[in-house]
Amino acid sequence: MSDSNGRTIDNQRRRFKLTIAYDGSAFHGWQKQVTADGGGLRTVAGELEKVLIRVLRQPVELVGASRTDAGVHARGQIAHLDAATTIPVDRLAQAITSRLPRDLEVLRAELVPDTFHAIRDPRSKQYRYKIHNTLRRPLHQRHQVWHCWWPIDVSRMAEAAERLVGTHDFEGFSAAGHGRKSTVRTIHACRVDRGREPMVEIVVEGDGFLYNMVRIIAGTLVEVGRGHFESTVIDRVLASKNRQEAGPTLPPQGLWLEWIRY
Amino acid sequence: MSDSNGRTIDNQRRRFKLTIAYDGSAFHGWQKQVTADGGGLRTVAGELEKVLIRVLRQPVELVGASRTDAGVHARGQIAHLDAATTIPVDRLAQAITSRLPRDLEVLRAELVPDTFHAIRDPRSKQYRYKIHNTLRRPLHQRHQVWHCWWPIDVSRMAEAAERLVGTHDFEGFSAAGHGRKSTVRTIHACRVDRGREPMVEIVVEGDGFLYNMVRIIAGTLVEVGRGHFESTVIDRVLASKNRQEAGPTLPPQGLWLEWIRY
Repeated sequence: MSDSNGRTIDNQRRRFKLTIAYDGSAFHGWQKQVTADGGGLRTVAGELEKVLIRVLRQPVELVGASRTDAGVHARGQIAHLDAATTIPVDRLAQAITSRLPRDLEVLRAELVPDTFHAIRDPRSKQYRYKIHNTLRRPLHQRHQVWHCWWPIDVSRMAEAAERLVGTHDFEGFSAAGHGRKSTVRTIHACRVDRGREPMVEIVVEGDGFLYNMVRIIAGTLVEVGRGHFESTVIDRVLASKNRQEAGPTLPPQGLWLEWIRY
Repeated sequence: MSDSNGRTIDNQRRRFKLTIAYDGSAFHGWQKQVTADGGGLRTVAGELEKVLIRVLRQPVELVGASRTDAGVHARGQIAHLDAATTIPVDRLAQAITSRLPRDLEVLRAELVPDTFHAIRDPRSKQYRYKIHNTLRRPLHQRHQVWHCWWPIDVSRMAEAAERLVGTHDFEGFSAAGHGRKSTVRTIHACRVDRGREPMVEIVVEGDGFLYNMVRIIAGTLVEVGRGHFESTVIDRVLASKNRQEAGPTLPPQGLWLEWIRY
């Protein structure tokens, strides 16, 4: 039970939703990985679980909404877990974060109904791909952007981005071996913005994304921006479902998971 | 000799001035260091010299204007060296930078008179100390700012900063063992700005700085901002020359060498 301030006042098992931010540079992605020798690679879920077990004093199983790859960043990753604790929910994020390494933090912890599911329930997710578009290479941001030194035409890219919006089979924009039954997804919005000089940012919102889908979309839009492809390449790849006709998969460090809505 | 485009057209030994930027996080400071086993720590000057020797195909001796500490960043460090090369001076920065690690770059190379001296001649240097002033700790910028979670009063700090301007004996604002003959320096300007939320930045310009001087000034201004000291602490430390009466030395990662003018 919770009192009127949302504090847990007894010790029943409940579901918690966590909003999580991380700098992906030093992580082998989100997903817990165990190596052959029984050791583990450093992953976001792995580091989080270690601290959750210490804070909550019980085994926990963390279910993360998006399995981000090594090097990918998050400002609003979502995960859920079940636990029985007397720690007030409004203190939980701080209690966890204070024990986490400096490249990982829990921004918010909330009580949610037991039916809430981080992976199954998202209505919309937003990703951003950050391109440092100038001759001079990025210095302090080198792990947080992708460096593209050739000129790209943002209005051409924006025109191509528009063509992605809608419900389509995105098979041609995904890496092999994604293991998903359906490759049909809905993109609600896709835009290309000039950010603060010299940044160009691709922002894409949808109900879900296939493996490497955002990085392949970004790579295809950059090819359009360079003049290597016409914007009609989008329609062609959607129709052919042929990965070979799309652009390259851009590197992970430019990719940011911005938010997930339920 | 140079032609009208500033290209070196013969092979005489000349003096070059380099403008250098680096992310100090992974360097043991500017100065070349040799360890007991004959190996070396990774330093900015050490990495630069290795590449200069390869590019210029001769031994080089690099004279850097400011011996920044481990963790300190630079946007406009200056160094000089003498070399004979047929590489056009307008290509030199790019030729060097393309071989440098990603946390270090040469922004500009210029021919200067043989009388130019990076250490002896600066008229003015600007340093900036960046404070991330909010409860939430910095994530992506954690190696580039100092985290101060208690509230600080910027107008109180600005009032104290004003009192530093002028020619004074800054002995009380320096670490022991600086090895300088005179501790008299002139500060041309010192201001405290609210940057983009949640940043507070201390900007100080002067003809030279003693060891740890900017970090001790920043630590003293923060104590004023917290209300632990009155702004008159500045006058007291200048008069007493007593390091113990000043504030703490803030950590290196918040410190940025911005520019050096000759």
